[in-house]
Amino acid sequence: MSQLEHKSQAWSALFSEPMSDLVKRYTASVGFDQRLWRADIQGSLAHAAMLQRQGIIGAEDLADIRRGMARITQEIEAGQFEWKLDLEDVHLNVEARLTQLVGDAGKRLHTGRSRNDQVATDVRLWLRGEIDGLSALLRELQSALLDLAEQNADVVLPGFTHLQVAQPVSFGHHMLAYVEMFGRDAERLADVRKRVNRLPLGAAALAGTSYPLDRQSVARELGMDGICHNSLDAVSDRDFAIEFTAAATLAMVHVSRLSEELVLWMSQNFGFIRIADRFTTGSSIMPQKKNPDVPELARGKTGRVAGHLVALVTLMKGQPLAYNKDNQEDKEPLFDTVDTLRDTLRIFAEMMRGITVNRDAMEAAARRGFATATDLADYLVKKGLPFRDAHEVVAHAVKAAQQQGCDLSELPLPALQAFDGRIEQDVYEVLSLRGSLEARRVAGGTAPDNVRAEIARHRALLAG
Amino acid sequence: MSQLEHKSQAWSALFSEPMSDLVKRYTASVGFDQRLWRADIQGSLAHAAMLQRQGIIGAEDLADIRRGMARITQEIEAGQFEWKLDLEDVHLNVEARLTQLVGDAGKRLHTGRSRNDQVATDVRLWLRGEIDGLSALLRELQSALLDLAEQNADVVLPGFTHLQVAQPVSFGHHMLAYVEMFGRDAERLADVRKRVNRLPLGAAALAGTSYPLDRQSVARELGMDGICHNSLDAVSDRDFAIEFTAAATLAMVHVSRLSEELVLWMSQNFGFIRIADRFTTGSSIMPQKKNPDVPELARGKTGRVAGHLVALVTLMKGQPLAYNKDNQEDKEPLFDTVDTLRDTLRIFAEMMRGITVNRDAMEAAARRGFATATDLADYLVKKGLPFRDAHEVVAHAVKAAQQQGCDLSELPLPALQAFDGRIEQDVYEVLSLRGSLEARRVAGGTAPDNVRAEIARHRALLAG
Amino acid sequence: MSQLEHKSQAWSALFSEPMSDLVKRYTASVGFDQRLWRADIQGSLAHAAMLQRQGIIGAEDLADIRRGMARITQEIEAGQFEWKLDLEDVHLNVEARLTQLVGDAGKRLHTGRSRNDQVATDVRLWLRGEIDGLSALLRELQSALLDLAEQNADVVLPGFTHLQVAQPVSFGHHMLAYVEMFGRDAERLADVRKRVNRLPLGAAALAGTSYPLDRQSVARELGMDGICHNSLDAVSDRDFAIEFTAAATLAMVHVSRLSEELVLWMSQNFGFIRIADRFTTGSSIMPQKKNPDVPELARGKTGRVAGHLVALVTLMKGQPLAYNKDNQEDKEPLFDTVDTLRDTLRIFAEMMRGITVNRDAMEAAARRGFATATDLADYLVKKGLPFRDAHEVVAHAVKAAQQQGCDLSELPLPALQAFDGRIEQDVYEVLSLRGSLEARRVAGGTAPDNVRAEIARHRALLAG
Amino acid sequence: MSQLEHKSQAWSALFSEPMSDLVKRYTASVGFDQRLWRADIQGSLAHAAMLQRQGIIGAEDLADIRRGMARITQEIEAGQFEWKLDLEDVHLNVEARLTQLVGDAGKRLHTGRSRNDQVATDVRLWLRGEIDGLSALLRELQSALLDLAEQNADVVLPGFTHLQVAQPVSFGHHMLAYVEMFGRDAERLADVRKRVNRLPLGAAALAGTSYPLDRQSVARELGMDGICHNSLDAVSDRDFAIEFTAAATLAMVHVSRLSEELVLWMSQNFGFIRIADRFTTGSSIMPQKKNPDVPELARGKTGRVAGHLVALVTLMKGQPLAYNKDNQEDKEPLFDTVDTLRDTLRIFAEMMRGITVNRDAMEAAARRGFATATDLADYLVKKGLPFRDAHEVVAHAVKAAQQQGCDLSELPLPALQAFDGRIEQDVYEVLSLRGSLEARRVAGGTAPDNVRAEIARHRALLAG
Repeated sequence: MSQLEHKSQAWSALFSEPMSDLVKRYTASVGFDQRLWRADIQGSLAHAAMLQRQGIIGAEDLADIRRGMARITQEIEAGQFEWKLDLEDVHLNVEARLTQLVGDAGKRLHTGRSRNDQVATDVRLWLRGEIDGLSALLRELQSALLDLAEQNADVVLPGFTHLQVAQPVSFGHHMLAYVEMFGRDAERLADVRKRVNRLPLGAAALAGTSYPLDRQSVARELGMDGICHNSLDAVSDRDFAIEFTAAATLAMVHVSRLSEELVLWMSQNFGFIRIADRFTTGSSIMPQKKNPDVPELARGKTGRVAGHLVALVTLMKGQPLAYNKDNQEDKEPLFDTVDTLRDTLRIFAEMMRGITVNRDAMEAAARRGFATATDLADYLVKKGLPFRDAHEVVAHAVKAAQQQGCDLSELPLPALQAFDGRIEQDVYEVLSLRGSLEARRVAGGTAPDNVRAEIARHRALLAG
Repeated sequence: MSQLEHKSQAWSALFSEPMSDLVKRYTASVGFDQRLWRADIQGSLAHAAMLQRQGIIGAEDLADIRRGMARITQEIEAGQFEWKLDLEDVHLNVEARLTQLVGDAGKRLHTGRSRNDQVATDVRLWLRGEIDGLSALLRELQSALLDLAEQNADVVLPGFTHLQVAQPVSFGHHMLAYVEMFGRDAERLADVRKRVNRLPLGAAALAGTSYPLDRQSVARELGMDGICHNSLDAVSDRDFAIEFTAAATLAMVHVSRLSEELVLWMSQNFGFIRIADRFTTGSSIMPQKKNPDVPELARGKTGRVAGHLVALVTLMKGQPLAYNKDNQEDKEPLFDTVDTLRDTLRIFAEMMRGITVNRDAMEAAARRGFATATDLADYLVKKGLPFRDAHEVVAHAVKAAQQQGCDLSELPLPALQAFDGRIEQDVYEVLSLRGSLEARRVAGGTAPDNVRAEIARHRALLAG
Repeated sequence: MSQLEHKSQAWSALFSEPMSDLVKRYTASVGFDQRLWRADIQGSLAHAAMLQRQGIIGAEDLADIRRGMARITQEIEAGQFEWKLDLEDVHLNVEARLTQLVGDAGKRLHTGRSRNDQVATDVRLWLRGEIDGLSALLRELQSALLDLAEQNADVVLPGFTHLQVAQPVSFGHHMLAYVEMFGRDAERLADVRKRVNRLPLGAAALAGTSYPLDRQSVARELGMDGICHNSLDAVSDRDFAIEFTAAATLAMVHVSRLSEELVLWMSQNFGFIRIADRFTTGSSIMPQKKNPDVPELARGKTGRVAGHLVALVTLMKGQPLAYNKDNQEDKEPLFDTVDTLRDTLRIFAEMMRGITVNRDAMEAAARRGFATATDLADYLVKKGLPFRDAHEVVAHAVKAAQQQGCDLSELPLPALQAFDGRIEQDVYEVLSLRGSLEARRVAGGTAPDNVRAEIARHRALLAG
Repeated sequence: MSQLEHKSQAWSALFSEPMSDLVKRYTASVGFDQRLWRADIQGSLAHAAMLQRQGIIGAEDLADIRRGMARITQEIEAGQFEWKLDLEDVHLNVEARLTQLVGDAGKRLHTGRSRNDQVATDVRLWLRGEIDGLSALLRELQSALLDLAEQNADVVLPGFTHLQVAQPVSFGHHMLAYVEMFGRDAERLADVRKRVNRLPLGAAALAGTSYPLDRQSVARELGMDGICHNSLDAVSDRDFAIEFTAAATLAMVHVSRLSEELVLWMSQNFGFIRIADRFTTGSSIMPQKKNPDVPELARGKTGRVAGHLVALVTLMKGQPLAYNKDNQEDKEPLFDTVDTLRDTLRIFAEMMRGITVNRDAMEAAARRGFATATDLADYLVKKGLPFRDAHEVVAHAVKAAQQQGCDLSELPLPALQAFDGRIEQDVYEVLSLRGSLEARRVAGGTAPDNVRAEIARHRALLAG
């Protein structure tokens, strides 16, 4: 019988009493690290193949290990694998079953490695896959935003600063701002991936091993960019998890900003958009309600991910080298960060395609608040006034319009000329929403043609 | 058939399409808020009884509701209750089943309340119970520490500042420092409890209700200290969750400090204590290892709870009144905080009773590092030297002892007198560990008699 | 010449080289802990008086110390005190000057204490005063909100959930929600104060002292509620700072929620309020802008205070007993938390008095969004329909009104009766905003009479 | 007189009252954003040159602006520039002075830009410079660690896991773990720099501008990698600050881990190292103390930086587009993060060169705790035993040695053979610390030759 059968017996020679049940539950991770099983097997198979290549285990051992792992894969996929709390974690569960299935070959698999480098390898392999999935979802969300931007490149939205009407912008342009943000998030994930995709295996417990392992070949077989160059660092480094969680937090912050706007725009006082019913919920008491639950919940989940970031930083702060058990606490925050970001991106990619834009409400709102006042100032500058003076002239005009309860564009020409004699009939084009939009043709500006060019640029990037 | 059967159909009159499955999973909370079922039923029964007292529902309705709830309680306890994701949360699951069991009476139960005030009530009732449980566990842990302190009131530990040997302290005195900390944690929980134990029910969705509810009587029946006085605040206030989590974070910080010391003291370079084997684990690769997994993990879990605190603060920041869906995200951090703190306190209360103290190793360590240098300075002050001058004299003596590789107490009298002529034979009592300990009789000081008096004081408080 | 003249020389006997300038700057705290000077002197005078009462120093020493401290107080108040980086912190600066002024008596002051217990005492004394100031400011803010509530008890605001129009509420009622929040903040400060107001002095470096100090009398003289009962805990406890910062974070979260609403309400799409010009700013480019800078900035400062909370928790996590230099980092976050909260409360108390309410805009908004739909459901329940059925009936009515582009109250009676025959002429009172408001007379509900009663209750509490 | 003279008068046309003094102090940033002055002038000069190239301002205007800015640079450098709170921030202070000096040309400088894109540009320019400085400091620290590693490549340190003796490692190898960490920190800064070094200028207030600006040429002139492609994103993006602060937090976490070890190693119970006196401090009460203040303080400052990260995330969470005043709160956390990291890296680079290693104490500690037990297990595996069985055999041997109070290497051969017959005389080489070290020749392992090769590899990277 394998001494792995019961984890608490694995150390029996030195331990005078079995582990307390309370401790077993407190320290076991198999409840949440199960999800690493595929990465665990993948890593073990690469390790085993290398051990055989290096002559550390025999060809028959390798064959046995492969056969056993294939069987275990089947069992887990079929939901027939029996996970045991006594065996603490995914690694010991898999290894114990392997030994049960193939005997000594299973026991030889652990040669030259330790749980410390094994778990670090598993988490990196798993996270690499998740990063690739998240990157694809970011692209899907960008693609949905680009479609929405294209459909609404000519729609005028009141651009806000301080939530006060500032200047008219294209709704498409506004959506492109989020395309930029999610683009940076994808850039960051790509940067993190470089540092995730390095191989700790071979670091053993902390000092490396005396077996002649060929770590580079294992890294190649696992598609990794290289090995971790220092064994102590390899088993204790959790930078990659923190860095990933920081990048995920930023992505959630972007989602939270978009959510805030969706919630505002859905509010009756804005009425700028409708979200498709399948993304909203009602009220158990107020029969008229249709609530934007998804963006609200996503906004709330930003806190959750930011909390995980703090958890991981607090966890690592002040830890001496090398591995300490504290590190086991890295997994749940990391796993939940991945799950939260994935679910959120997926649902947003769908939901943004279910947005209906109320063009009239947006234009009406843009007309309030003197959105083209800056255009008048720029008009005066082009006529020779220093900007600061033009700014002051327009302030007086706005004050007058406010008192008369009308927009600047509704003041008659003589009234406008009273503020500055240089104002002529062509000012009314400048004071129109459309004119204001079209005028902002500077690179990155909101002119609809710019917006369309930017959409094309982003589509090419996504296609690349 | 009840329209509650499928949550997505509950709003069918206004909603043109059913909720997307993705959304259902994203927004459902029944997976984690199930644990509120007992509080939910307790709150509903109190509400129903009041509705009947006020003549809003009939006596038969109340009887039906009680019968239905009794049945539901049985079903849940027996694990036979079918929780449905379609019904979103614990509240709708229970209510739908109630209506299935007792018909119209079930539908009448929701009169004068909303899920907004219902969920706030449930969480408060549940948390109140958990606070009481945690307070009891804090007392258990204090009690274990008091026993350990009593057994070791006379054991000399090198007191550290900056992890440098500072002055000798009683090991019991050191344990009492943690008794103080956990005592403050209990005080804080008692303070939080006052603010948790107020009744939101009756606030309805946000504005109160037009039914003539008697909220005070419901508060009394539920053992609450009073009602929430403003309906908008009642449904949107999550202060109590944040404040609780902040208090829990502090308790975990205290645990982390104790853990740090246990890990240090277990290290071979200290060797001050042994933790019973049942609280330690071995290594899959290093056969000689016996690792203090429990304190390490607890130290790591501090990050987890601090992360939850950040999650909750981030969640609430900038939320307009009244209820927003973001608030659903308050539950998992709160639940996990309770679970983590409870498991940790329980295991520490047990583990601290399994500590074996190595008195010799502690005394030997205290003898290194000139732990009684301050005693010599105080001795000189009592002989008339200003403290600052005495400090300087002793620094020179320490330097000399360092050069001779001995303790101050091992310098011969003439050598000591060379630094200050006021030094006499009685200095050696002052320079002994025991003498140093005994001398610190000031209130709160480390003299063993003080320690014993403090233990008695704390025992009386715990008994009170 | 005093060896305190240059801090780096204070340890010269043992130290082979002076402290590096870089280190001096890195470790010095006098740049920020200067603000503790008054508390430092207050604590020292109480300590000195007790030393004299206990016969540890002479009456002349005490007189000298008092004279010296009076002089130092004058110098600091006049801006003539020379703060020296070489003397590291406020404590050594004051003590060095005292010794310069009064000689040996100054050197004797430090008898039986250490910087460890001295700094803990200073921070507690200082924070106690700040808590009292903050509590007064919270009351001022509550008072401003009460005045605003009173002026607008009858003004109808659309109550939102999910930022969707939910039910009409009194604007005064809405303000009272914040009065409740700030009331809980004041409660929390009062609870924190109990734990702040305990005396560490006498704990000395970590172990207590051999001098026969009378700590209880010092506590009484300083107006403290008692002594810290364990010397190790006394010098290393920073719970009070963390707990205070957590309470301050909650207060800032409340400010952030109010700010979010003020910003929304100022936005042209709401137009519910105007903030007096002196609390707003303009734009350097957009001449028409009037921005709610103060609430925006306050909302942003919530992050600042939450960050300080995290800083303090991270700082303490895993620290072994007793004092470690890490703790010096407790001061800046704490000081900045106090400053931020104080400035914010002060400016809000003023600003809330400068709010002009646009009653018409609020009522118009409340009329959109079927704010009285729940009232119709309740009406039907009173006519005998189970609530869940009434909810469904109203959903159909809302759908019909939506299609006709009118409010429920604008549907003719026969149209309403088509949904349920129990509907009669009296329904129109129920469907009016005013009627809805008046109906919610349950305790805590939004009926204007309730609001006025609550204002009176709060005023009495504030007066108490 | 310029209307900029008093900021509160800049908006006088629309504003009915001057800004309150309280508000002025609350909203002014000139107290802390002064440090941006050089970047502000650099950005303005590039903007002005482009305006002239594009024919928007005249050549004389440009000459005036350059002359004025040269004068202002002189004034600031000489400490003669008068910063005015009334002018709110660095930008208005500089612009007002410029206009004072050169008249209309100064007023024309603001053409086509806004404070929103100006401040974003300034912060990015400034931060880019700081990142370069920090990267250089990281290299200096790595270099110091490499020197220390080289001097101690052969020194045996007990490698710990769980702070229990695990396996012998080279002290040089241990230092290299930190070289890896700081290397990743530098990688991260380089990645952040790519996203910092993009030009917002030209985004104007939020929508771009109608002036025909050539943004690409400004980017080139300022050495930037490209422009921000979306004006709304350009003025509201603070990702770069958050991402930088996250990277800085990780660097501080690494410093905190090194600090923890330095503090441990300085403790009398370890005695592994001495830190040069100039990096330590004494005690005002305990004359024998020499405290590792610098690493302790650095460990504490980790919390500070992590707190700033939380502040920034909280700040941005849920902000609608585009610029909101909340964003002004991004500066102080960012500035303090830079200052803290810079001071810390600088002092560590110096301090690590002042470390004296106590080789004997390390070796003695490594000899405790059966550090070579794994070597014995590996020895048995090479003799044909499956690893799991070898692990168990060694556990029994360790137990026996523990009972006899000796190391494994001190058990006689027959005693060892009693556990497994395959053990022969050559086992004693395996059981020696040196033998253990030399055996771990796998890539990344601790063998001294590996360590030296890694040092060479890192030196080449630093030189590259």
